[in-house]
Amino acid sequence: MEKDGLVLTWTLDPQELESKFNSKTKAIILNTPHNPLGKVYNKEELQVIADLCIKYDTLCISDEVYEWLVYSGNKHLKIATFPGMWERTITIGSAGKTFSVTGWKLGWSIGPNHLIKHLQTVQQNTIYTCATPLQEALAQAFWIDIKRMDDPECYFNSLPKELEVKRDRMVHLLESVGLKPIVPDGGYFIIADVSLLDPDLSDMKNNEPYDYKFVKWMTKHKKLSAIPVSAFCNSETKSQFEKFVRFCFIKKDSTLDAAEEIIKAWSVQKS
Amino acid sequence: MEKDGLVLTWTLDPQELESKFNSKTKAIILNTPHNPLGKVYNKEELQVIADLCIKYDTLCISDEVYEWLVYSGNKHLKIATFPGMWERTITIGSAGKTFSVTGWKLGWSIGPNHLIKHLQTVQQNTIYTCATPLQEALAQAFWIDIKRMDDPECYFNSLPKELEVKRDRMVHLLESVGLKPIVPDGGYFIIADVSLLDPDLSDMKNNEPYDYKFVKWMTKHKKLSAIPVSAFCNSETKSQFEKFVRFCFIKKDSTLDAAEEIIKAWSVQKS
Ligand SMILES: Cc1ncc(COP(=O)(O)O)c(C=O)c1O
Ligand SMILES: Cc1ncc(COP(=O)(O)O)c(C=O)c1O
Repeated sequence: MEKDGLVLTWTLDPQELESKFNSKTKAIILNTPHNPLGKVYNKEELQVIADLCIKYDTLCISDEVYEWLVYSGNKHLKIATFPGMWERTITIGSAGKTFSVTGWKLGWSIGPNHLIKHLQTVQQNTIYTCATPLQEALAQAFWIDIKRMDDPECYFNSLPKELEVKRDRMVHLLESVGLKPIVPDGGYFIIADVSLLDPDLSDMKNNEPYDYKFVKWMTKHKKLSAIPVSAFCNSETKSQFEKFVRFCFIKKDSTLDAAEEIIKAWSVQKS
Repeated sequence: MEKDGLVLTWTLDPQELESKFNSKTKAIILNTPHNPLGKVYNKEELQVIADLCIKYDTLCISDEVYEWLVYSGNKHLKIATFPGMWERTITIGSAGKTFSVTGWKLGWSIGPNHLIKHLQTVQQNTIYTCATPLQEALAQAFWIDIKRMDDPECYFNSLPKELEVKRDRMVHLLESVGLKPIVPDGGYFIIADVSLLDPDLSDMKNNEPYDYKFVKWMTKHKKLSAIPVSAFCNSETKSQFEKFVRFCFIKKDSTLDAAEEIIKAWSVQKS
């Protein structure tokens, strides 16, 4: 993580990553576009990961549920398409994220038969079945959009276009009140460094990480909600992320308008 | 379990049931109409269970997913309506079973606030959310049928009527080939004693209970499928149920016709 003016960028450190691999490393989980960081891994970074997976004979579980949500200047790449990776990669997609129907809990895994057959065993003995009307709706949605991939109306094109405007609006809103957003390459979340704001959190419970206290304070006093980023971390990395909270910008314009009203009032109050 | 000519009936033994209760008994699970037995508990039996729950201060988790599927001469009763039971009962229903959409995995629990609030905590941290289109469909279905409860077209009336005919057909079919069905009071399963049939199971794996071998044999050689009833049992009761298999009769008439063809050919072969 490098500070670069107001923009923070997350770069992959190949040495640090390799230090986490050893002969017992069975699998890694990759997530691109990343929730909550908004990072979209580029070709060089994915090559580093692929090389390590091959060197250490490691499976790659690639969570690509936000695959269609990438913004100008970024490109989503599937690590399964890198040489030597197909046979060791399970790529995961989500109906909820692809067609904006979160909560349907319907998705798919793509991979070679020798891996997928084990997922089928688990599926058969856990999930067992998905609701057929939802599966049919998903199939129809794909069928419509796959035939018009070059059309701006295709949901895979129209949704990121629509969201990029909301992302940019959200960046400006957050900056206007002294939060330091990290502009996401993809996905529909934006994280922001809240440490410069320093509100009076004395009425919040004290035994919680800073970001938990901050979002509770903001929800209570500003009626704006966000998710504490340290909720995504293990104990080793928690302290690094305690100054960040995650906002969601896949919202109706009227909801963003309401957020803007709140934020304007907030910045007036501060100045 | 008493043998009474061709009809077996399952009666509750109050002494045996009480012997399973003690001061540590936190909860019991009741299931009426019962899967796989097809038993619908009557008023006296439910009173025995209610009295024990009250005496031992035990919760009752009452699985009533087949509540609408009761056949002539039987009546579904909710144990939660017995005196002293509301405050200790969670009654469970299922959209899948109520409206013949199994696989939707959508249902409900009914109970007093002091119990339901804990279910909500579990729901929030496990299931988390259900797909709203399915919830809306379920709400609409209830809305339609609740306004016409006395109408024969109401699904709560038409489905059991339709199924009772299929049940009776299935009883005769199974009897014609030497299986001994136990006529179910409710639900859409029928179990049958297969022990008199004694087919040659020598090509089946030997390390399995009799009912497992029987259903595999029947599936392979007769193209009829069923579920081994001992799959529902714990190790104590397994041996009592090894001679039973469970058939499902909520099938299209054309499927029952096909079963009839198979069974006719089978009985000709045997005679
Ligand atoms: C990175 C990532 N993977 C997977 C999921 C799960 O998606 P779904 O519930 O649609 O399967 C989420 C949802 O928030 C996510 O952010
Ligand atoms: C007795 C009983 N309870 C509960 C269920 C679960 O029903 P659902 O998957 O619709 O929630 C079943 C399904 O077979 C059942 O037979």
